[in-house]
Amino acid sequence: MARIVKGGLIQASCPEPSSSSVEKIKKVMIDKHVALIAQAASEGVEVLCLQEIFYGHYFPAEQETKWYEMAERIPDGPTTILMRELAKKYKMVIIPPICEEDMTGVYYNTAPVIDADGEFLGIYRKHHIPHCKPGFWEKFYFRPGNTGYRVFDTKVGKIGVYLCYDRHFPEGARILGLCGAEIVFNPSATVAGLSEYLWRLEQPAQAVANQYFVGAINRVGWEEPWRIGEFYGQSYFCDPRGQMLTVGSRDKDEIVTAEMDLDMIREVRQVWQFFRDRRPETYDPIIDL
Amino acid sequence: MARIVKGGLIQASCPEPSSSSVEKIKKVMIDKHVALIAQAASEGVEVLCLQEIFYGHYFPAEQETKWYEMAERIPDGPTTILMRELAKKYKMVIIPPICEEDMTGVYYNTAPVIDADGEFLGIYRKHHIPHCKPGFWEKFYFRPGNTGYRVFDTKVGKIGVYLCYDRHFPEGARILGLCGAEIVFNPSATVAGLSEYLWRLEQPAQAVANQYFVGAINRVGWEEPWRIGEFYGQSYFCDPRGQMLTVGSRDKDEIVTAEMDLDMIREVRQVWQFFRDRRPETYDPIIDL
Repeated sequence: MARIVKGGLIQASCPEPSSSSVEKIKKVMIDKHVALIAQAASEGVEVLCLQEIFYGHYFPAEQETKWYEMAERIPDGPTTILMRELAKKYKMVIIPPICEEDMTGVYYNTAPVIDADGEFLGIYRKHHIPHCKPGFWEKFYFRPGNTGYRVFDTKVGKIGVYLCYDRHFPEGARILGLCGAEIVFNPSATVAGLSEYLWRLEQPAQAVANQYFVGAINRVGWEEPWRIGEFYGQSYFCDPRGQMLTVGSRDKDEIVTAEMDLDMIREVRQVWQFFRDRRPETYDPIIDL
Repeated sequence: MARIVKGGLIQASCPEPSSSSVEKIKKVMIDKHVALIAQAASEGVEVLCLQEIFYGHYFPAEQETKWYEMAERIPDGPTTILMRELAKKYKMVIIPPICEEDMTGVYYNTAPVIDADGEFLGIYRKHHIPHCKPGFWEKFYFRPGNTGYRVFDTKVGKIGVYLCYDRHFPEGARILGLCGAEIVFNPSATVAGLSEYLWRLEQPAQAVANQYFVGAINRVGWEEPWRIGEFYGQSYFCDPRGQMLTVGSRDKDEIVTAEMDLDMIREVRQVWQFFRDRRPETYDPIIDL
């Protein structure tokens, strides 16, 4: 019997002024997402990933301690608790990336993974932290992740998470494949310019090299007052052959969905025996250099 | 002063029947390539890479001991000696991939690298050996390479070589980048079907991840009696942004050339600090799994 899984990705703009309180911003964005999650459920989505730091702006556009207040504990903070309730209610795997406070004043860019019965399965912390123009000042906020590249055994399949800038690093994508990931989600926040051409190049190539499905999310719209660029949306699913299944709009709040036949993974691996033919004994420079 | 290097790639069909003697096949193909190399020199090419096992068919379409006779010693065999003479004559770096006999009856799929004064700089032996349908039976012929992923300091820049099926493995491509490669050549033999979509996806993605130029060669035409597929040509150069510089024809013998501005590597790395932000201490599973 074919293993068909319906996946969903939510891309959504942040309409609240960044001068508002952190509480207000979060409330506006969480309300918006709660409605979109209900809609995804009505469309039969079984596994849903939200955008990076889904409940606010992409605030690393500036370096201000105000934004440390965005952080919550996981799994004991309010957003993870709410998402566990929604996951259970809708029988849906949910991955809601937020800012995590691990201990007082220590923050990570983190994605919790919640199973379709509401069980908290664990977290992935973003490993590769950008700090570059035109406004991706993440080293000011986040400690580099220390969870390793984890694969979560959910009710719909084996799920890996990679986070935004991580996508430029083939190593973690490979490790997720080696650890058995069937679908890798990557919630991103990236703007028009240099990266847009890469948007359809890097992650499809990782889907091919590692022979899994990829769900990539990007936010939409312009965020004030920073205007670091247009978040160009186009969240997508691609298959283990690197072919696009669905691509979202450039500028609209949207649930992007695709039906993924996980049996395609075996089919592709029986044509291309990449895992058989790797040469790990020759790869030392990857950890030495 | 900009560091502009003119690169060349030769794609060429093998018109000699595969039932001919190995000597005859080699003579036909070497004569054809000597003429093309002279033409490349007249066009000002400074670094030239030939196709995989350039001096014959892609004989791993079948598994026959006859083809062991294709192998030569490196650098003492006649083809390497000839290529060194041509490199010196034309002041051109030449990479002429052949079958190598290392000791009696032990063969590698190898690319010698010859500097622009004829100096023999060393070899790269293909590390990842396919053995799959519809006719890539290389494990019958070749021992997996044991040279490591070497970067050669030539008169035109730092050159890495990756060979055909190697291109499906991001690890070696990464190691070449870590070792300072500015241009990576990949001589291939690949046929229409599953791989054709990947042809413009995998190696441009590696150029982006590792921020170097790539020159990818594929042969052209159908080879009898095997007809494993159409070698679809389209040899290309792409830049560190993953953009195509030049793409050859699908079906013609051809010298594909491009002018590469090696200063673009610094420019791209100053925008994207991928090497700064790698996390080698988290990559152990790449060598452990």
